Amino acid sequence: MNNKLLVLGTIAYDGIEAPLGKRDKILGGCATYIGLSASLFENDCGIISIVGSDFKKEDFKIIKDKGLDCSGVEVIENSKTFFWRGRYDKNLNSRTTLETKLNVLEQFKPIVPNKYRDSDILVLGNLDPNIQLNVLNQMSSRPKLIILDTMNYWIERYEEQLEQLIKKSDIISINDDEARQITNEYSLLKAAKKISNLGPKYIIIKKGEHGAMLYNEGKIFIIPAIPFEKVYDPTGAGDSFIGAIAGYLSQTKSISFKNLKSAIAYGVVVSSFTVQSFGTENLVKLNYKELSIRMEELKNISEFQVKHNF
Amino acid sequence: MNNKLLVLGTIAYDGIEAPLGKRDKILGGCATYIGLSASLFENDCGIISIVGSDFKKEDFKIIKDKGLDCSGVEVIENSKTFFWRGRYDKNLNSRTTLETKLNVLEQFKPIVPNKYRDSDILVLGNLDPNIQLNVLNQMSSRPKLIILDTMNYWIERYEEQLEQLIKKSDIISINDDEARQITNEYSLLKAAKKISNLGPKYIIIKKGEHGAMLYNEGKIFIIPAIPFEKVYDPTGAGDSFIGAIAGYLSQTKSISFKNLKSAIAYGVVVSSFTVQSFGTENLVKLNYKELSIRMEELKNISEFQVKHNF
Repeated sequence: MNNKLLVLGTIAYDGIEAPLGKRDKILGGCATYIGLSASLFENDCGIISIVGSDFKKEDFKIIKDKGLDCSGVEVIENSKTFFWRGRYDKNLNSRTTLETKLNVLEQFKPIVPNKYRDSDILVLGNLDPNIQLNVLNQMSSRPKLIILDTMNYWIERYEEQLEQLIKKSDIISINDDEARQITNEYSLLKAAKKISNLGPKYIIIKKGEHGAMLYNEGKIFIIPAIPFEKVYDPTGAGDSFIGAIAGYLSQTKSISFKNLKSAIAYGVVVSSFTVQSFGTENLVKLNYKELSIRMEELKNISEFQVKHNF
Repeated sequence: MNNKLLVLGTIAYDGIEAPLGKRDKILGGCATYIGLSASLFENDCGIISIVGSDFKKEDFKIIKDKGLDCSGVEVIENSKTFFWRGRYDKNLNSRTTLETKLNVLEQFKPIVPNKYRDSDILVLGNLDPNIQLNVLNQMSSRPKLIILDTMNYWIERYEEQLEQLIKKSDIISINDDEARQITNEYSLLKAAKKISNLGPKYIIIKKGEHGAMLYNEGKIFIIPAIPFEKVYDPTGAGDSFIGAIAGYLSQTKSISFKNLKSAIAYGVVVSSFTVQSFGTENLVKLNYKELSIRMEELKNISEFQVKHNF
């Protein structure tokens, strides 16, 4: 049997303005992206989140149809779902938040259903560290694997809580700028070492268009992102990445360095589909065969032979 | 027998100011870095360059001891060698030129020795495109492989000559910013395609700390740079990269996509040694065994397994 997976995060409506198009109000939120990506690898996956009564039935259907258990998603009557609207610059390198309406998020006090308190893998999606800690503390036993995702916004506001969380995590996913910010080191190798000294066994540094780096006890692995001529919407790329990693690990179980490398490759591939459409458009259509084909492409892109004797 | 290699470029004295140290006047210049790197792979390699009478015997000895033929290096009496002094910013991402004394370069009218007019591989190091064209035109027959390196300074000044050169080259090596500047495309995939339409079969885009990308007829290869905690001096990294590629290709001959991938991996490895010391300090000491060991490390850093059935 596969490992049981629990995902904490937001379910949101997003407004996206990007060079190649615009969407007013589409399904988003880190739990959505993580869950949909994890669901590509068969598993028993529960979502802990909160939505308002405006959350559409068809959006619930999208999530549930992937086999994701929504019993941990609270629906608040007469309230609205978390809404975020942002604009990407022309090279998709930076984004400006145009609007954030926390709505139901302001009263989010998650309760983990009994069924998921003994989950093997816990993914703490990018969210208020206090809520991440709250969910972690509800687990009946320490999950075999705790994966933490966070960002600069939380680092600046809740340093102490974040330190606790980092200490308790096995895998932390963070982007390059944020790794540098936390550690005050420019070298990503130095930054990863420093974060690793805070607790986590595996440090995953996301480098956007440059791919990702994995660090573990002096060993490193670097994988490129798949380059495209057109990127539609980077929203959820990091969440898809971490969701695929969690999904893959829930199936293969081993958390050896070698298996983590493969997990990260799947993360890169799944997020490459995400950025090629707006929101979750591609992610909900994606099947395992397409995933396998692109995995081979990624391998071809990054593989080379060493010739020692000429 | 290995292919005959001809390298055009500068031999210089450099002054370096970097976060981890300073050097007043050390051996540099693109022909020096390219030649020393190419010499790691046994071959018959001639250098076309110019120096002043101040150029030290011991520096000539360093170059000649590597088996590099200096019969094409003109020595101008009562003149000084090209001098460049620059300062790197604290993250080594950008550099400021503090001083440029062209000296002998102002009168550089290269003459290719007869012996090298039929070279199999011609490397046109980063230099005035008029001089690059001049040397290309002196070849008795078209070299099997023409490798062109250039930079923004020349792109802005000699667009027309550069276009001619690009058209005639098989491999062009250019950095990411410059590829974007030339093509007015942010996507490196689009940029590479556009440059490829100008002539060259292979486009190598250097991405600094993020490694390099190879493009050839729709196929791509991406390789990371080896990350370090400390980088001493990035000067000559791109030249070492291209020199190793040329040296490797002079031995293995095939210019298949597969072999180009290996060549680029050697380029990454040789330049990784270059940046870990000031100037050519590491490069002159480097031996083939160290190179082979680091090639295996690079392979480990970038290799992963694809599991299709769980």
